[in-house]
Amino acid sequence: MPFTLTQLNAASADEALQLLDGLYEHSPWIAQEALKQRPFQSLAQLKYQMTQVLEAAGREAQIALIKAHPELAGKAMVSQSLTAESTNEQSKAGLTNCSTEEFAKLQQLNTSYSTKFGWPFILAVRGPRGTGLSRAEIITTFERRLAGHPDFELQECLRNIHRIAEIRLNDKFGFTPTLGNAVWDWQEALSEYSEPAYAEQGQLTVTYLTEAHRACAQAIQGWMQASGFDSVVIDAVGNVVGRYEAMSIAAATPAENYKNNSFSRNSDEPYNPKTLLTGSHYDTVRNAGKYDGRLGIFVPMACVRELHRKGRRLPLAIEVVAFAEEEGQRFKATFLGSGALTGDFKPQWLEQLDADGISMLQAMQYAGLCPGSDAATAMRAIGQLQRDPVNYLGFVEVHIEQGPVLNAINLPLGVVTSINASGRYLGTVTGQASHAGTTPMTQRRDALGAVAELALYLEQRAVQDGDSVATMGQISVPGGSINVVPGSCTFSLDLRAPNDLQRNTIERDVLQKLEQICQRRGLAFELQQTLRASAAPSAPEWQQRWEAAVTQLGLPLHCLPSGAGHDAMKLHEVMPQAMLFVRGQNAGISHNPLESTTSDDMQLAVEAFAHLLEQLVHEV
Amino acid sequence: MPFTLTQLNAASADEALQLLDGLYEHSPWIAQEALKQRPFQSLAQLKYQMTQVLEAAGREAQIALIKAHPELAGKAMVSQSLTAESTNEQSKAGLTNCSTEEFAKLQQLNTSYSTKFGWPFILAVRGPRGTGLSRAEIITTFERRLAGHPDFELQECLRNIHRIAEIRLNDKFGFTPTLGNAVWDWQEALSEYSEPAYAEQGQLTVTYLTEAHRACAQAIQGWMQASGFDSVVIDAVGNVVGRYEAMSIAAATPAENYKNNSFSRNSDEPYNPKTLLTGSHYDTVRNAGKYDGRLGIFVPMACVRELHRKGRRLPLAIEVVAFAEEEGQRFKATFLGSGALTGDFKPQWLEQLDADGISMLQAMQYAGLCPGSDAATAMRAIGQLQRDPVNYLGFVEVHIEQGPVLNAINLPLGVVTSINASGRYLGTVTGQASHAGTTPMTQRRDALGAVAELALYLEQRAVQDGDSVATMGQISVPGGSINVVPGSCTFSLDLRAPNDLQRNTIERDVLQKLEQICQRRGLAFELQQTLRASAAPSAPEWQQRWEAAVTQLGLPLHCLPSGAGHDAMKLHEVMPQAMLFVRGQNAGISHNPLESTTSDDMQLAVEAFAHLLEQLVHEV
Repeated sequence: MPFTLTQLNAASADEALQLLDGLYEHSPWIAQEALKQRPFQSLAQLKYQMTQVLEAAGREAQIALIKAHPELAGKAMVSQSLTAESTNEQSKAGLTNCSTEEFAKLQQLNTSYSTKFGWPFILAVRGPRGTGLSRAEIITTFERRLAGHPDFELQECLRNIHRIAEIRLNDKFGFTPTLGNAVWDWQEALSEYSEPAYAEQGQLTVTYLTEAHRACAQAIQGWMQASGFDSVVIDAVGNVVGRYEAMSIAAATPAENYKNNSFSRNSDEPYNPKTLLTGSHYDTVRNAGKYDGRLGIFVPMACVRELHRKGRRLPLAIEVVAFAEEEGQRFKATFLGSGALTGDFKPQWLEQLDADGISMLQAMQYAGLCPGSDAATAMRAIGQLQRDPVNYLGFVEVHIEQGPVLNAINLPLGVVTSINASGRYLGTVTGQASHAGTTPMTQRRDALGAVAELALYLEQRAVQDGDSVATMGQISVPGGSINVVPGSCTFSLDLRAPNDLQRNTIERDVLQKLEQICQRRGLAFELQQTLRASAAPSAPEWQQRWEAAVTQLGLPLHCLPSGAGHDAMKLHEVMPQAMLFVRGQNAGISHNPLESTTSDDMQLAVEAFAHLLEQLVHEV
Repeated sequence: MPFTLTQLNAASADEALQLLDGLYEHSPWIAQEALKQRPFQSLAQLKYQMTQVLEAAGREAQIALIKAHPELAGKAMVSQSLTAESTNEQSKAGLTNCSTEEFAKLQQLNTSYSTKFGWPFILAVRGPRGTGLSRAEIITTFERRLAGHPDFELQECLRNIHRIAEIRLNDKFGFTPTLGNAVWDWQEALSEYSEPAYAEQGQLTVTYLTEAHRACAQAIQGWMQASGFDSVVIDAVGNVVGRYEAMSIAAATPAENYKNNSFSRNSDEPYNPKTLLTGSHYDTVRNAGKYDGRLGIFVPMACVRELHRKGRRLPLAIEVVAFAEEEGQRFKATFLGSGALTGDFKPQWLEQLDADGISMLQAMQYAGLCPGSDAATAMRAIGQLQRDPVNYLGFVEVHIEQGPVLNAINLPLGVVTSINASGRYLGTVTGQASHAGTTPMTQRRDALGAVAELALYLEQRAVQDGDSVATMGQISVPGGSINVVPGSCTFSLDLRAPNDLQRNTIERDVLQKLEQICQRRGLAFELQQTLRASAAPSAPEWQQRWEAAVTQLGLPLHCLPSGAGHDAMKLHEVMPQAMLFVRGQNAGISHNPLESTTSDDMQLAVEAFAHLLEQLVHEV
């Protein structure tokens, strides 16, 4: 029999604990400690409190909690001594129906895992929509995590335990993340479209204007129409643009407003409702995850569907754009979709060729996007996509974090402070190749030694700033041999910071360090800048709106810079913008099939977006 | 009018200085200071003393000396204000006959060089045999050195200045390194044979049993015969074996001995003269230098030619082996030539295939080496090559250093203490690939960071030992991207030390360090040993013979380990051995067309070998 948060808040300590019985396997102390923080504003707040209790309890208690769990398809399942909750979960995951081979494999994995880590493998086997992981998926995940490092695996077990507790708690409260599930379903459906060469291997790849890409656009268009958008068009570059119009002038009388929409307007002003622009991209990298970009289309889509379902209009229009291109995978240009809206679509891009020698203009024509057959006609059509900022309130974008921060602190949402400034370089240090056996250490001009020093300096220097990052992603000794002192060493640098000044400073320090190292070691170097992008700090008033929205959900506020580029970076050039991040599972892995989030977290993102809309309603 | 060392030693200080006038451009102080060390035992000693004077004078005086030199084909040449010596040298190098383009190119190089370094470019343009460098070679060398580091280039200029002084000094004394020139001529002639694909590009490549390789064997056989060896055969694996027999029993009566050969023998002992084994390999790596291996064939050949010319026999036989294979370039096996002599030629090697799918047995048959057509017959013939150590005194090998040590200390010869023990590894560190922009520094599992730490530890740890070397020659982030934190990083390790214990200790420390680094950073690693070779310390009595030989030349003694493997390492398994190293030019670069030495240095090597023979004569 489900109960409500109000009941939980009002119950005696013992009653409350009884209500939360069985959330954490054989460990009521977690709920008990968390309940001291009553009253809770939201389930999300209660969930977060429980993660904090476990965090504070320390490693020993954490390991004890993990050890309180049964092995998957282990002895406890066989001897039917699992808790009711575990029995339900393991049976739903089909573990009670293992084949002999699967069962033997799982026993072997259990043994290897507990030998390596000293605790049982924990995996939240129930997924959203009650489907759960397949036995094959469970075995693959088990194998992958068995290879991991104990510190990481400990945290991964705890995160899975919290996820199990979340699902159990939802059951107790009879709570279904309906809007999150809607977003989940759209994501799943959209990820059915993938380019054939990748689809064959079960991989998701949707690059600009391929057939899979066109199918995605059609699907999104259909869903937007079904969700109640007033108009949905696929524009000249392939963006899917859905508009949900503001209330009509007739409806926008103060009296009507107060009754239905609770917003105030001075009736002397002319009624000229502005538009909130939002969205993200639907193209993907190769062998991608399902959420990058797409989440930022479906979250506002769910909000509009809710408004439409309730027959509600706001004193602002909502324009959700599914941008056709952001990842720069098929052609060298990136941000084609958002670039068209800011008037930054460059004519020469049309001449770029993909790996098969097809030009962008040809690809557009095959896709039936541009009316004419020549570049000039295409550019005229694309030019018309440019938005006049006067008509817009600003741009907001919801995106999966693509990083480990929110996952590590058990928070479903975070507010972006800035899209980082960046600088990228390719470098070569040149020394003197010589015989590894015959050249004394003191007479070497080892190019790799210098680059190794630089790699360690990057780590040390970026940590000083706290929120800068510096990465050497590539390194190589061209033509290097095991028995030759490296005569040259090539490497890459990727430096990012939340603002341009900070980026410039770390950049200067890193280059100075490289100079010093080479000077001291008697080496030469060359460095070529390959990219330099300015920071796109969030507009303060928009960042505050996201902050208020998150706080209204009962969640603690965590602000963070975005290390990755986003469509918002492009819109930043013409209007105020701010982004909301949604936690990624698996330590935030991105551009990878393991990229993942939950319908519970997506539910909270939809709710935060709705809160942001309500704030706008009150402001305009 | 040439003069003698005796005259120089007997002259007054002023007269002596007058005799050495013009050795160092406008800088008589160097000779003046060196002359304080009179009397000199050899020209080599005088030359070395002058290098020591300049070494002690410090950087400022060294740069002043360099600046006292004219530019190549520079203003001084044009205005005919060069010293007589420089005029002679620049004219012999053909610089006075430059084309307009060459002259313009040299002016441009002079300007760039003096802008970069602040002193003029110095190059000893006169080579051995009076040939000198061509204008094209001069320009290529100029361009290469222009790219170098100032510290290195300063030393390179000083080394060229010493070489110029050496040639000028030889002129003054009317000294020609006749035996060194003979070795020089053999090296030049032998390097005419190269595999067609490389010869086309002017490169030297002679791998096992190719046509070029067979031609080399024929040439060496011819030269050995012409030098007076008693028998010269090409054996079943392609070694060219020349024997110069000991004096006959008739000649070996004590009276005869004392008269002609000054050696003593108790006439009661049966006369059973032993053989000194020596030699080195004539195969090369791809795009090789001319001296690696071959020097160790021609130096003893020059000695035998002298003995034969004088009609002299020793109470020991000399067996010079030009080993057919040491470098392991065509097939996976190495030390095929010396391995056959130690009985370590493995039957399965015959089945190995080269890059074109030709087996070693087939290659031997094409080359007409083995009488039979089957492996068993071939192995019987090869088995007969095994030497019985009872018949041998020991093995000595002369080899170019292949390292920078002797070049750096201005010594033409060095005595090898040991062929280093070694251990090689290929490793992989595994972390977690993640987004370079979105993963905070504190949440990374950067595999490259760990390998960078290890690379720096190698440097620091090897320096502690003084004579250990540790190298990371290869490094790579497989599939790495500029914007992805390295999830894995592969690398190689090459560790060497003069004895097994020292190698074991550095090996243990390096592996422990890798473990610590990965533990601290939360990473995993795998390490695979690909090679492990024991040290081959020189037999003390044979090392002492080389030391005595070097000392008799008036040269200071410098002993050093050999970081590279040599045929002597193989012979070490069955008889005592010791090696002599000859200085390499160009900082000792090896396995490279720039590998080089001078006929003056090779002359000293021949003389040292002759001294070693004399010691044996007195001992047996």
